[in-house]
Amino acid sequence: MTRYAMFGEIMMRLKAPGYERLFQTPSLEVTMAGAEANVAVGLARLGEDVSFVTALPTNDLGIAVRDELRKHGVDVSKIAFCKGRLGLYFVESGANQRPIKVVYDRADSCIARAEPRVFNWRELLAHRDWFHITGITPAISETAMHCTLEAMKTARDMGLTVSCDLNLRATLWQYQVNHVDVYRRMMEYVDVLIGNEGHFQSCLGLSARVDEEDIYHNPTAYRPMADEVFEHWPNIKKIAITVRRTRSADHQSTAALLVTPEAMWTSSVFEMKDIVDRIGGGDAFTAGLLHALDKTGDSRETIDFAVAAGALKHSIPGDFLRATHEEIQTLAQGAAGRDQR
Amino acid sequence: MTRYAMFGEIMMRLKAPGYERLFQTPSLEVTMAGAEANVAVGLARLGEDVSFVTALPTNDLGIAVRDELRKHGVDVSKIAFCKGRLGLYFVESGANQRPIKVVYDRADSCIARAEPRVFNWRELLAHRDWFHITGITPAISETAMHCTLEAMKTARDMGLTVSCDLNLRATLWQYQVNHVDVYRRMMEYVDVLIGNEGHFQSCLGLSARVDEEDIYHNPTAYRPMADEVFEHWPNIKKIAITVRRTRSADHQSTAALLVTPEAMWTSSVFEMKDIVDRIGGGDAFTAGLLHALDKTGDSRETIDFAVAAGALKHSIPGDFLRATHEEIQTLAQGAAGRDQR
Amino acid sequence: MTRYAMFGEIMMRLKAPGYERLFQTPSLEVTMAGAEANVAVGLARLGEDVSFVTALPTNDLGIAVRDELRKHGVDVSKIAFCKGRLGLYFVESGANQRPIKVVYDRADSCIARAEPRVFNWRELLAHRDWFHITGITPAISETAMHCTLEAMKTARDMGLTVSCDLNLRATLWQYQVNHVDVYRRMMEYVDVLIGNEGHFQSCLGLSARVDEEDIYHNPTAYRPMADEVFEHWPNIKKIAITVRRTRSADHQSTAALLVTPEAMWTSSVFEMKDIVDRIGGGDAFTAGLLHALDKTGDSRETIDFAVAAGALKHSIPGDFLRATHEEIQTLAQGAAGRDQR
Amino acid sequence: MTRYAMFGEIMMRLKAPGYERLFQTPSLEVTMAGAEANVAVGLARLGEDVSFVTALPTNDLGIAVRDELRKHGVDVSKIAFCKGRLGLYFVESGANQRPIKVVYDRADSCIARAEPRVFNWRELLAHRDWFHITGITPAISETAMHCTLEAMKTARDMGLTVSCDLNLRATLWQYQVNHVDVYRRMMEYVDVLIGNEGHFQSCLGLSARVDEEDIYHNPTAYRPMADEVFEHWPNIKKIAITVRRTRSADHQSTAALLVTPEAMWTSSVFEMKDIVDRIGGGDAFTAGLLHALDKTGDSRETIDFAVAAGALKHSIPGDFLRATHEEIQTLAQGAAGRDQR
Amino acid sequence: MTRYAMFGEIMMRLKAPGYERLFQTPSLEVTMAGAEANVAVGLARLGEDVSFVTALPTNDLGIAVRDELRKHGVDVSKIAFCKGRLGLYFVESGANQRPIKVVYDRADSCIARAEPRVFNWRELLAHRDWFHITGITPAISETAMHCTLEAMKTARDMGLTVSCDLNLRATLWQYQVNHVDVYRRMMEYVDVLIGNEGHFQSCLGLSARVDEEDIYHNPTAYRPMADEVFEHWPNIKKIAITVRRTRSADHQSTAALLVTPEAMWTSSVFEMKDIVDRIGGGDAFTAGLLHALDKTGDSRETIDFAVAAGALKHSIPGDFLRATHEEIQTLAQGAAGRDQR
Amino acid sequence: MTRYAMFGEIMMRLKAPGYERLFQTPSLEVTMAGAEANVAVGLARLGEDVSFVTALPTNDLGIAVRDELRKHGVDVSKIAFCKGRLGLYFVESGANQRPIKVVYDRADSCIARAEPRVFNWRELLAHRDWFHITGITPAISETAMHCTLEAMKTARDMGLTVSCDLNLRATLWQYQVNHVDVYRRMMEYVDVLIGNEGHFQSCLGLSARVDEEDIYHNPTAYRPMADEVFEHWPNIKKIAITVRRTRSADHQSTAALLVTPEAMWTSSVFEMKDIVDRIGGGDAFTAGLLHALDKTGDSRETIDFAVAAGALKHSIPGDFLRATHEEIQTLAQGAAGRDQR
Repeated sequence: MTRYAMFGEIMMRLKAPGYERLFQTPSLEVTMAGAEANVAVGLARLGEDVSFVTALPTNDLGIAVRDELRKHGVDVSKIAFCKGRLGLYFVESGANQRPIKVVYDRADSCIARAEPRVFNWRELLAHRDWFHITGITPAISETAMHCTLEAMKTARDMGLTVSCDLNLRATLWQYQVNHVDVYRRMMEYVDVLIGNEGHFQSCLGLSARVDEEDIYHNPTAYRPMADEVFEHWPNIKKIAITVRRTRSADHQSTAALLVTPEAMWTSSVFEMKDIVDRIGGGDAFTAGLLHALDKTGDSRETIDFAVAAGALKHSIPGDFLRATHEEIQTLAQGAAGRDQR
Repeated sequence: MTRYAMFGEIMMRLKAPGYERLFQTPSLEVTMAGAEANVAVGLARLGEDVSFVTALPTNDLGIAVRDELRKHGVDVSKIAFCKGRLGLYFVESGANQRPIKVVYDRADSCIARAEPRVFNWRELLAHRDWFHITGITPAISETAMHCTLEAMKTARDMGLTVSCDLNLRATLWQYQVNHVDVYRRMMEYVDVLIGNEGHFQSCLGLSARVDEEDIYHNPTAYRPMADEVFEHWPNIKKIAITVRRTRSADHQSTAALLVTPEAMWTSSVFEMKDIVDRIGGGDAFTAGLLHALDKTGDSRETIDFAVAAGALKHSIPGDFLRATHEEIQTLAQGAAGRDQR
Repeated sequence: MTRYAMFGEIMMRLKAPGYERLFQTPSLEVTMAGAEANVAVGLARLGEDVSFVTALPTNDLGIAVRDELRKHGVDVSKIAFCKGRLGLYFVESGANQRPIKVVYDRADSCIARAEPRVFNWRELLAHRDWFHITGITPAISETAMHCTLEAMKTARDMGLTVSCDLNLRATLWQYQVNHVDVYRRMMEYVDVLIGNEGHFQSCLGLSARVDEEDIYHNPTAYRPMADEVFEHWPNIKKIAITVRRTRSADHQSTAALLVTPEAMWTSSVFEMKDIVDRIGGGDAFTAGLLHALDKTGDSRETIDFAVAAGALKHSIPGDFLRATHEEIQTLAQGAAGRDQR
Repeated sequence: MTRYAMFGEIMMRLKAPGYERLFQTPSLEVTMAGAEANVAVGLARLGEDVSFVTALPTNDLGIAVRDELRKHGVDVSKIAFCKGRLGLYFVESGANQRPIKVVYDRADSCIARAEPRVFNWRELLAHRDWFHITGITPAISETAMHCTLEAMKTARDMGLTVSCDLNLRATLWQYQVNHVDVYRRMMEYVDVLIGNEGHFQSCLGLSARVDEEDIYHNPTAYRPMADEVFEHWPNIKKIAITVRRTRSADHQSTAALLVTPEAMWTSSVFEMKDIVDRIGGGDAFTAGLLHALDKTGDSRETIDFAVAAGALKHSIPGDFLRATHEEIQTLAQGAAGRDQR
Repeated sequence: MTRYAMFGEIMMRLKAPGYERLFQTPSLEVTMAGAEANVAVGLARLGEDVSFVTALPTNDLGIAVRDELRKHGVDVSKIAFCKGRLGLYFVESGANQRPIKVVYDRADSCIARAEPRVFNWRELLAHRDWFHITGITPAISETAMHCTLEAMKTARDMGLTVSCDLNLRATLWQYQVNHVDVYRRMMEYVDVLIGNEGHFQSCLGLSARVDEEDIYHNPTAYRPMADEVFEHWPNIKKIAITVRRTRSADHQSTAALLVTPEAMWTSSVFEMKDIVDRIGGGDAFTAGLLHALDKTGDSRETIDFAVAAGALKHSIPGDFLRATHEEIQTLAQGAAGRDQR
Repeated sequence: MTRYAMFGEIMMRLKAPGYERLFQTPSLEVTMAGAEANVAVGLARLGEDVSFVTALPTNDLGIAVRDELRKHGVDVSKIAFCKGRLGLYFVESGANQRPIKVVYDRADSCIARAEPRVFNWRELLAHRDWFHITGITPAISETAMHCTLEAMKTARDMGLTVSCDLNLRATLWQYQVNHVDVYRRMMEYVDVLIGNEGHFQSCLGLSARVDEEDIYHNPTAYRPMADEVFEHWPNIKKIAITVRRTRSADHQSTAALLVTPEAMWTSSVFEMKDIVDRIGGGDAFTAGLLHALDKTGDSRETIDFAVAAGALKHSIPGDFLRATHEEIQTLAQGAAGRDQR
């Protein structure tokens, strides 16, 4: 069994109830959330062996986060506990024309302030086979960027497979750096790359582009986009490209392609008309992808499973993919929404 | 006024809040539920005189169930109280591609263990005009099957009209019997039969079949299916055939046909795009059917009223049809969803 | 900055949770609501200077209403406190084919019983530039009708711009009067008129009519309807006509036209497929209209902003338009439902 | 088995959650409440046959009240449904030095406006053995006072036992009458009288008085008070005198005496240090008294059972005594608060 | 009418429901809280004219705080909106032996980072008669300390009465300073000083001490403690000394003394055995004190009112004194916990 | 560090909200509970290494139980998953004179039906130092009794320390056996025995007895009781005797003694006047005892820590001791209920 490790920030997410605007009524729903943590939990619920590396404060918030990860079966023994604060974000659901709104309060968190020496990557990645990271972690702070690069480099040196989800949050990048430079340095350590159609340009500064409707009618249009990546970074062996169409806050569709230098598989399109919670949908896709790559390798089954995982997440409150292999498999095979009685 | 009696199991239904998965947050919503009980409550809220026969435990759960039925105006004086437990089921809502999920904990309930001698049908059915039962009750246990057949036979002997909703829950049938044999024996006592297009084959072992789109374009295709029933069991005088199309967990449509040996009426199709709670939808249809048969007899009005009752239920949390004659009538006549201010 | 004043009833709204029917479970959600109050809060949240005139009881309900208005920045110093009761209404959400249901308990409220001498309009309207009222206020009671007419007349005499939203609630008119007569008297004081396509006939007794699909294909069909108003009441200088299509309780569309004697602008059509709370949608439109007229005058931008405000309200629980200028502007310019991360 | 009938107002009670002040957060808890209704439900839960007579509006509020009574087993077939409104009251819990606060909104309810001809007492009291009423009903309105007296007179004429709980709500008496005169007229029809130590003076204008500590040290001090009643109204055969000591909003004690012309029994004193909900405590006492008089007659057991019923109510949210005979009996016999595992 | 101004931090308080430990279940209750803000709201609810000066972030959290203050009638027009974050604190209720637990997340808030030039005190204090501050504000940060001293000095220069509540939070003082030095500098501008028996030593470095039971038996023991203050800072004209005895998390008592150089008044002792929420109790005392000093001057009535206000707060969830003059007056006069029906 | 293992049933506990009676309102609060599981979680939260052995069903309920244990840091890798059901219990809080009420629905659970061969104790207890069990496990079923004895015997054989909490639930013993015989057989394997003053007679059939007030005035009275145990089972080396006084459902006190053949230590008495949740109090005592024995050995500190742990649990909702070593230590040292700000 593949043994995964991931590194990133996990925050407390404080959500207004139902479709209320923030602070409309005086209560908040607490869940935990963070791009790599979402992938970790999703994989753990699928039965995988996952270790999550982060820095948490030694207060009730840090403890609560650790316990939540542990509940889902994630290995928390590699977490560093420090003095400081936990990153938070406040969120309200969107509906119809009203988009989801997020208010971040994540500055100066433990992970943002953690010095590279906090993490001994040789030890943290021992007995691990796969390292996953996203483009959000280096955006947190300059030290987090250094930790990210060191982790990726060490993972590669130690022979782990490295996957990376380009995941640009432009507003997060607050320190003096060109994020494209950082992403391009990261690419040197990557085996499996995940991104949406816009990321190749916005994160990596590449030039290939696709038309919005190509996913339906002309999936081969994505080939040049992938080839440009393969050409720049020959170490990258697989690319998963996700495609989302947003009709309204609660009506969207999702699909994806798995591309290797030799082949390409296009998933079914999943139409989601009554989205419950779209945050974490991309991370659920990644969890599904990693799990399926492990089980079914490069194939149409793999990309369908990954997209089904991502779609299923949209029906579940919170950031986490709380689903079993069987549930995702059933959906990937087409039995959408039928009763299980 | 027609005086109804029904017999079956009523359970406590424990539902995760909103669209949460089971036990995602630590609370459960309690309602009561059971096929015949749902019909009983629906009829009682429509102003009918209904008596419900079951066995309940003499603890707080059994008392709570009795009180809930009584609240809606169902006659509870015929309920047998016993030592034992109440059947439970845990449920989570579906959304989009994620289906409703039910976890049963109903084994060894009072009603499953009740011996036939617990129920004196001559007394229980005295001063009643109509007896209703579903295909779920004989599935509960072998003793429940014997009780079912005895009740049906007695009802017929006493001159009551007998209606039966074929309602196959394949996983429930745990004792040594071929369910088709049981259903065929039940048919001998039935006047009014209710089932969906698949039940005639799966429950009764008949051969006629329809195409999925026939309800829209070719309703006469259902005629041979009904005729096969009429031929086998000449005592059956009316058949209501329900049709459901499932696009996703919360987008479905419903329609139905009322068939007699001489005539056939097809209802409007109700498209439900934001289903609130689909459990009990079939029982609401039956409640509407029985009520309307009593008021408007064999007619298009009757089947439209029944389908409107079923559709309306999909917008109401819980298993029960909490609606008035006027509300259903308004919907049956086409004023869907307009404000009543 | 334009300084607004409005006059009308504000009630406590007691809603069943989620999609439950009234009293299905034993809790109610409390918000405050009333046509002019909704406009007042909407404008105040958009940063406008608004004073709300009403009569409230000197008990905890009246105090709670005052505090809620004050919270949103509405000037409450002109409210009259009296002995008596607050109007209430109970409401349940609709879903699919099941419409919203309202049960009023608003008879004999303070505002319904307030004598005209309670309100010294010269003082209440001092230092105000714009007076807004709806057709609901004169329907409350005969004294409320007299207060309404006196307020409108005084506003006009003092040189305020007067806007009026025809807003017929036929069931409210309980005293001896022909409501058309009252509305026609009100029109004599109006500068800006708001109404839907049916109001010109039902409230004002005019004859022009449009076809239901005209908004999409033939907006000029609305011109004669507006001209008939302009002809009868030359004091009316602008008319906003709102158009709603109801497909189900939670799937509706909205659009509007702004008409002057010289020109006409038609808004985009907003399709709302998962309505959260449609009550107050019309008042949000009015708040958006008044705000935009002030900022962008007679223009396509103005009517698009107003319709976007109305559409946005449909995604927010409660009667109030809790939204900022920027949010509405973004929607008016077409970015419906995209994440703001 | 004694068959009871009672007459009075039942209201909807809207309570702020927990210990919050009214409208501190935007939700209210709904229960039903009213002096005689509380007694009716308490008796029904103790297994008695009780019919409740009142007037309710034909809207969702009236229906909800009827259903709630029916749920507890009260016979609701004698309720009159009328046009009008349901009485409401808003309430917040007290704690420590902060008392319970009630805001009434009960004016002009159906029962307050019901004309005497609405109630045909000969029919309503047929097949009933006992009629119970409180001093609140005649306070509602002048017509309610006439209904009260007619009901009591008819009950007496028909041979029913009549019990009356003096229960002065001074603020309710709004019409032109001296309430002492009304109470003295009522006394002419009473067999069993219930009141606290102050009522004999405040309601009946009598002169005997007791000292506050007499219940502990000198219960015979209550004898002259009772004798004064027996002297004025020889028809009164039993008096139950309740005694309450209020240390704070949630720390109170309760005790009572049962007095006949020949004998007197004093109950144990129940100290309640963490009161959950004290409203309805007196009505629970009455329910316990009527039930116990029926079972154990004039005795120390009877008054202990009644006080235990009243004390137990203080631990239960809502106005109703939701308790069984066994639970009260156990408490009356001294096993306060021990686990039942 | 005295016009008040106050300056300090207001935070969002996130509380675990009921008696739960933090994050035991996934929801938090949101209220607003801060020492001076609590006083401001308490005074505003008592009908006083209060302006609150602070710095808030221009995000949804800052807006929500402003709206909450505005709701209670506090003037919010003097609040500075800045880039940055709002201070938060997480809290769980105590019970029995388990104490309240607070987890602060208030570092780097807008107010902690606000430079003195943000506040133009001449303008902010114009048309104000009284300035109030606590010992918490200078503890927030070094800049906050400079703002505090400048505000106090300006207030005194402008002729305002200055009150100060010594309110030591030792853990807050994180910058390089001896807090006693700061407090002693603050004292030079104070007219009315508030503190508990320990503050005179811990905050001001004075030597006089009292015995714990003196409040009950020997209140004159507090005279030397006050005299030491009067001697050091002759500008101080009144001292209110509060006394709290903690038996458990929910059983405490409170009392106070009002001391002038010439006289001394000791309040009643309030025993609180079922505390609902003790946070803000001291601030409620201060609000009551300022209000009563204004109404009844130096007197026993004043200190009793202040203590009653503080005691009453302990029965109300949240930090704010949500109470009227009449409610506090009734309690100050001894009617603790009796029903108001 | 001592490595613990425990064996027993863990159930889902479904509690009515607040102080409501069961099913009074339609929601239930879900927690997990079971005597040994409670000890396991308490120890894990204190930082100990604990493995919990049980049998759980392979459905969502079993998964939820496993996840909850895992969240608290308990090792769940030794749990057996089987076909079957999870034991449930329904509970309502007591208050004042009203006791806690429990309705069990735990018959036929996985653990009750698990055959001894399901558990390979040699493997399950490998690398463990301490085995803990209670008197509840053998009561579940005859097979559970056989599993219990085999586990205890194996543990002893393997050299583990064995602790046992006598914990009689008389109603659970449903199979043909004299529970005293079972308990006496269990004693042969025990090193550390825990029980209350009555258990030595009711469980073990011994004769020594104490007077109820002895804990306060005459603790040496417990010596003969302990000596009788030491005499019968020389393998028992320590006895912890717990003492509880129940004044009402929410006012109780607790204390304990630690007795060895050579010495005896009596704890302080903890008076708990506002109990939040008393279930699990005994298990929290045991968790505290095992933890403290490990840290401070036989001593007054140990028994004070254990009683403080038990007392603290009474202030926390749910069965689990959610507390840290520091919190219990602070309480054991006497700082009850003081703020930690």
